[in-house]
Amino acid sequence: MFLAEIIGVGDELLYGETVDTNTAEIAVSLQPYALEIRRTLRVADHLEALTEAVREAWQKARLVVLSGGLGPTPDDITREAIAAALGERMEIDPQVLAWLEGIFADRGWKMPQANRKQALKIPSATWIANPRGTAPGWWVHREGKDLVSLPGPPAEWRPMWAELLPRLGLPAKPYRQVAFKTFGLGESRIVELLGDLFQRNGAVEVGTYAKMDGVAVVVRGEPGPVEALAAQIRPLLGEAVWGQEGDTLPALALQLLEGRKATLATLESMTGGVLGALLTGIPGASRNYLGGLVSYSLEAKSQLPIPLEVAAQHGVVSAAFAEAMAVAARGLLGATYGLSTTGVAGPETLEGQPVGTLFVGLAGPEGVRSRHFRLPGASREMIRQRAAHAALAFLVSELR
Amino acid sequence: MFLAEIIGVGDELLYGETVDTNTAEIAVSLQPYALEIRRTLRVADHLEALTEAVREAWQKARLVVLSGGLGPTPDDITREAIAAALGERMEIDPQVLAWLEGIFADRGWKMPQANRKQALKIPSATWIANPRGTAPGWWVHREGKDLVSLPGPPAEWRPMWAELLPRLGLPAKPYRQVAFKTFGLGESRIVELLGDLFQRNGAVEVGTYAKMDGVAVVVRGEPGPVEALAAQIRPLLGEAVWGQEGDTLPALALQLLEGRKATLATLESMTGGVLGALLTGIPGASRNYLGGLVSYSLEAKSQLPIPLEVAAQHGVVSAAFAEAMAVAARGLLGATYGLSTTGVAGPETLEGQPVGTLFVGLAGPEGVRSRHFRLPGASREMIRQRAAHAALAFLVSELR
Repeated sequence: MFLAEIIGVGDELLYGETVDTNTAEIAVSLQPYALEIRRTLRVADHLEALTEAVREAWQKARLVVLSGGLGPTPDDITREAIAAALGERMEIDPQVLAWLEGIFADRGWKMPQANRKQALKIPSATWIANPRGTAPGWWVHREGKDLVSLPGPPAEWRPMWAELLPRLGLPAKPYRQVAFKTFGLGESRIVELLGDLFQRNGAVEVGTYAKMDGVAVVVRGEPGPVEALAAQIRPLLGEAVWGQEGDTLPALALQLLEGRKATLATLESMTGGVLGALLTGIPGASRNYLGGLVSYSLEAKSQLPIPLEVAAQHGVVSAAFAEAMAVAARGLLGATYGLSTTGVAGPETLEGQPVGTLFVGLAGPEGVRSRHFRLPGASREMIRQRAAHAALAFLVSELR
Repeated sequence: MFLAEIIGVGDELLYGETVDTNTAEIAVSLQPYALEIRRTLRVADHLEALTEAVREAWQKARLVVLSGGLGPTPDDITREAIAAALGERMEIDPQVLAWLEGIFADRGWKMPQANRKQALKIPSATWIANPRGTAPGWWVHREGKDLVSLPGPPAEWRPMWAELLPRLGLPAKPYRQVAFKTFGLGESRIVELLGDLFQRNGAVEVGTYAKMDGVAVVVRGEPGPVEALAAQIRPLLGEAVWGQEGDTLPALALQLLEGRKATLATLESMTGGVLGALLTGIPGASRNYLGGLVSYSLEAKSQLPIPLEVAAQHGVVSAAFAEAMAVAARGLLGATYGLSTTGVAGPETLEGQPVGTLFVGLAGPEGVRSRHFRLPGASREMIRQRAAHAALAFLVSELR
């Protein structure tokens, strides 16, 4: 099998100021191809070090992919390193320079001198257009090999790479991946449920990945064995499965609301805005999400039409209060459904309830319900994120 | 300067199923020493690939640190790879074997055969005790060089490394790092402002890092030159500087509110909950952040005491509406300050205003103000995050 080498460029990756997830994401995108990835590298903004890394990779591998180091500052040295490693000289491309100047002109600015270097290219490279930034990429095809240089920000390189990858003509291998997204089951519980089906051999591989929106169970490898194994696994996971590859809880929730021509309002206590942020992160959310309230302290609660007598009787962290909050959200914004969160994000306990306690309330034409969760999480931020996803998982299961 | 090489071992690191933060954390721990780190590697569970990586690292570097691959399963091959790379043979250490068997016996279990390999060691290695797991590490000191092999889980390797590192006798170097966190300046604008001060030589190094909360300008290297250069850079960045290393905008905003014994309420349109989520992400936020509203569609706006006539006259994306929203937030929750966001997160434009347009409104005892931003950003999510941070940067600058 041919080798692929993936290199992330930048001091900030070495020291974790920016966590390098690009090299892993690029590695995953290469799984459908008959290429072996033995290692990935993070290399400093250091001309000699990067030149050496590119030279070595170009020698060994059929495909070399770099991300980062294409900015305008003096420590952006990826262009220089590739040119040195491949023994070519860079020249300014007048067309790209004009395009760059145009970007700045559109904003009413003069292009800084520093950006000129982003129009530099070696003769054997073809430009890869960057629709979202000032750093176009390079694609070098030489001696039956490919080298691709992409910018660092995922929002920039992802569309560039998605467009280019199929055009590289890499040798394909039959490959299939099936993912079951679950909520409410821990990883070790899933390992127990799966028993001997949790396997890893030449043809097929099962993995579990704990994320904020639950645990994803992924089966991948040769298409036949993958489909056979996935069909055995699916019933074991039962109602915990809420979606498959590519699904997200906020998009699914909005889609189900749209299917009923229904609207949603939220009242968040424990999640403090995270739930609203998840929903409004989906373009077009305003069609079905009217908005919500972040009611974070009791003072604020008392200014709003929230039945504080319920809190006084049952506690703020209670099913009754979650339900009263959901009713209030629905009424205040005139929505079809009201969704609420109340609980303990930590670091301290509240009303004697442990960190990770969550009550979700849902009010709608069918009445009022609530659900209690005990969420794991190593930090306040993780627990808040999990809580917002738990609320959406509850909404999705109720709407179905 | 001598080289250090850091290697993370495991397929799950290559593909991001586990995000590798070990190599970066180890790199940071080495900053006080006179060692250069030019790259870090993640290597597959592949004997040949890892043997080659260790051999190459041992040739080049004064210090080699590995983490991962010390478990009991067949794909844990770090021990084998080091032995092969260093040309030594492993033997079972009866004392360590007895210790391992003891661990299992204490839990009332018989040790699985698989765990025997964790008692294997090459002659030139010294054991590093692992107080939290069954994978002890190796420390090889040979030919004036050191190689350290640690387990993968941070909770296991951290105490082992903390204990060993000072004993390695590595050459120390005086080191200092100063960071200026700025908002409102782009990276290329900062490069222009700094001019020749944007330097990188043996003694000191300047870097810029674009994050959601603006651009951080970091100066690092020898303490004297770092402090001298930082003192020259500071005035050039002017009012754009809002904080230093370790500061975050939401924490700073809450701290300034607390200093005035003031409270805050928010009304978010463009940021859809992201602003509230940032504030409530800080433990104890409820002391000064009363809560807020996510008013995402005009229908919702009409249910709330928001002066829609202002929107009708000036548009939803306007300074006047941002100010009216801030006044409404302040009034509705009875807070000292009301903070609002309205603008265009994308992907579509709104009221003829381009994506990235933001108006922030602030209402308080001193009156009502607003600021207009044009935010860059390659995606809706980035623009929303930037917008929430822009609102906080505005609040911080006004409270100061």
